[in-house]
Amino acid sequence: MATKLGKQTYQPDNPPFIISTGTVAGPFEGQGPLKDYFDHVYTDTLAGERSFENAEKEMMANACFTCLQKVNVTPQEVDFYLAGDLLNQIISAGFCALELNIPFLGIYGACSTSAEGLALAAMLVDGGFAKLVLASTSSHNSSAERQYRYPTEYGVHRKPTAQWTVTGAGAALVAGYGAGPRITTFTVGKVVDQGIKDPMNLGAAMAPAAAATMVQHFADTGRGPEYYDLIVTGDLGKFGRELAVITCASKGGFDLSKNYNDCGLMIYDTEKQDVHAGASGCASSALVVYGYLYRKMLAGELKKILLVATGALHSVTSFQQGASIPAIAHAVSIEME
Amino acid sequence: MATKLGKQTYQPDNPPFIISTGTVAGPFEGQGPLKDYFDHVYTDTLAGERSFENAEKEMMANACFTCLQKVNVTPQEVDFYLAGDLLNQIISAGFCALELNIPFLGIYGACSTSAEGLALAAMLVDGGFAKLVLASTSSHNSSAERQYRYPTEYGVHRKPTAQWTVTGAGAALVAGYGAGPRITTFTVGKVVDQGIKDPMNLGAAMAPAAAATMVQHFADTGRGPEYYDLIVTGDLGKFGRELAVITCASKGGFDLSKNYNDCGLMIYDTEKQDVHAGASGCASSALVVYGYLYRKMLAGELKKILLVATGALHSVTSFQQGASIPAIAHAVSIEME
Repeated sequence: MATKLGKQTYQPDNPPFIISTGTVAGPFEGQGPLKDYFDHVYTDTLAGERSFENAEKEMMANACFTCLQKVNVTPQEVDFYLAGDLLNQIISAGFCALELNIPFLGIYGACSTSAEGLALAAMLVDGGFAKLVLASTSSHNSSAERQYRYPTEYGVHRKPTAQWTVTGAGAALVAGYGAGPRITTFTVGKVVDQGIKDPMNLGAAMAPAAAATMVQHFADTGRGPEYYDLIVTGDLGKFGRELAVITCASKGGFDLSKNYNDCGLMIYDTEKQDVHAGASGCASSALVVYGYLYRKMLAGELKKILLVATGALHSVTSFQQGASIPAIAHAVSIEME
Repeated sequence: MATKLGKQTYQPDNPPFIISTGTVAGPFEGQGPLKDYFDHVYTDTLAGERSFENAEKEMMANACFTCLQKVNVTPQEVDFYLAGDLLNQIISAGFCALELNIPFLGIYGACSTSAEGLALAAMLVDGGFAKLVLASTSSHNSSAERQYRYPTEYGVHRKPTAQWTVTGAGAALVAGYGAGPRITTFTVGKVVDQGIKDPMNLGAAMAPAAAATMVQHFADTGRGPEYYDLIVTGDLGKFGRELAVITCASKGGFDLSKNYNDCGLMIYDTEKQDVHAGASGCASSALVVYGYLYRKMLAGELKKILLVATGALHSVTSFQQGASIPAIAHAVSIEME
């Protein structure tokens, strides 16, 4: 049984382990500063497939099989597969579930999917329903941009607030036993809507959700930001990150200036790679946390991190009908003894 | 802690109660044989809103608030809100979560969402993470048809295998205490793909998934179909139902001829209402189970039912790219002492 802390935070009695991760990245991500932390870098955004959507599914499957193979776990041994992505009907996850042949629970949290998957996996494991849960997510620049905004082939001019959807996928294997970083608490977010209507400025739509979840996490746990070696949001980008810092200070009096970064500002070399406000997409937090930070934790360089994955629940349909863009953020604290 | 039965089935140690449900239906559904079992029937498919998408959200919210009000529970008392629907980015659920202001975990299982929500809710409650979980789903004929096939205004001729997407929403409140029908076991399905490519014949795409999950459920629990007073699939329709009966007999030797029906054949008067092969949509199983069967259980007329909600993971994009339509089904047994 778990302990509920405050209003939205949970502490598993026996914190589940993340016993393995798998990360695969596109060629552009493979030119960034974290390239050596990914298990595989594709040389081609099509990943040998005929469509960008098929390529994204291939990447998701590769991340999952890589994650399992590292610890010699077969899909048959995994109790549940939790996955989601940005494509309509989460087809990357659905077709990947077909290949894996693991009992599947589809999730949708846009770019908050990495944390939603980890939180649910932790509950299924700590609640006694599973020994092993595989959680994965993916995004692909070309499949996402043409679904949500413009096909990349159009070469549309992008606003300074626009972010670059990451091509790649990440998977994590959550277990009730083993070794490695553990999921010690998680805070499940509420949907927040501050009236932002610009799909070229999703960082501004998501920042209030990120700040709300962080403030709630600190209130619920009695911890301040200084408890963590590093706090990372998923994909707020340059402007969203600034807004999150200001909002956490004004709403909760929390100082994020010392140990907070955004995965969207870590995955690319923002000096040399022209990504405007930074990275976005489900794979932003998945690649940074499951690739880079996971290895830093295994190496003992980081002990306590807080992942705050941020999702803009942006829909082309509701946008065209004049609605604003609601957002959500879930926080997961990962600690290494 | 729960008991795992066989390969894909789980038995909560303290089976959670479904302490309340809320159901709202569109005007066409309000002309069907189950109309007296719904909490509210709209006289207008727009439900007073400006778009069909907004109408669907209004219906989802109405079902949720109705469900809570029946047992005097406020949204603030609910630990988690689990919801999903058929629209891209599950906007009905997302905007409803904004109104409810409950910590939200978005789920996507197409028309298997009702059972996915109940299974996850049961795990969160029995696992000690929640006292109260609200699960809901919705569909709307006009919003779904224009997204997946043709806008209804086109008046396109429909094939005999085509099904009629149900307009409505259903919510269930799952609790660790109380009275009422209980979630005694659930079987989480795998994604199945038999190569069906016709979005006008989703029953055929889903029937193999339904049969696979039923056969697995019977194998895992050691029960036969006769254990249940009634087994219902979500929305296979006339042809899909026949296929499920044949497949369960051939793959598992199970005889479904005596106590099995499909929600898609129950919600409309198929003699008088021209719905071709029957009903489909997330609201098909939600309205039949949360409205009709739930009340039959409370009245003591049914003791043991098995809900097998069936989802076609149909995507316009993958269909246009030549892919077939994978499907999934989850089973939940609901029993009244």
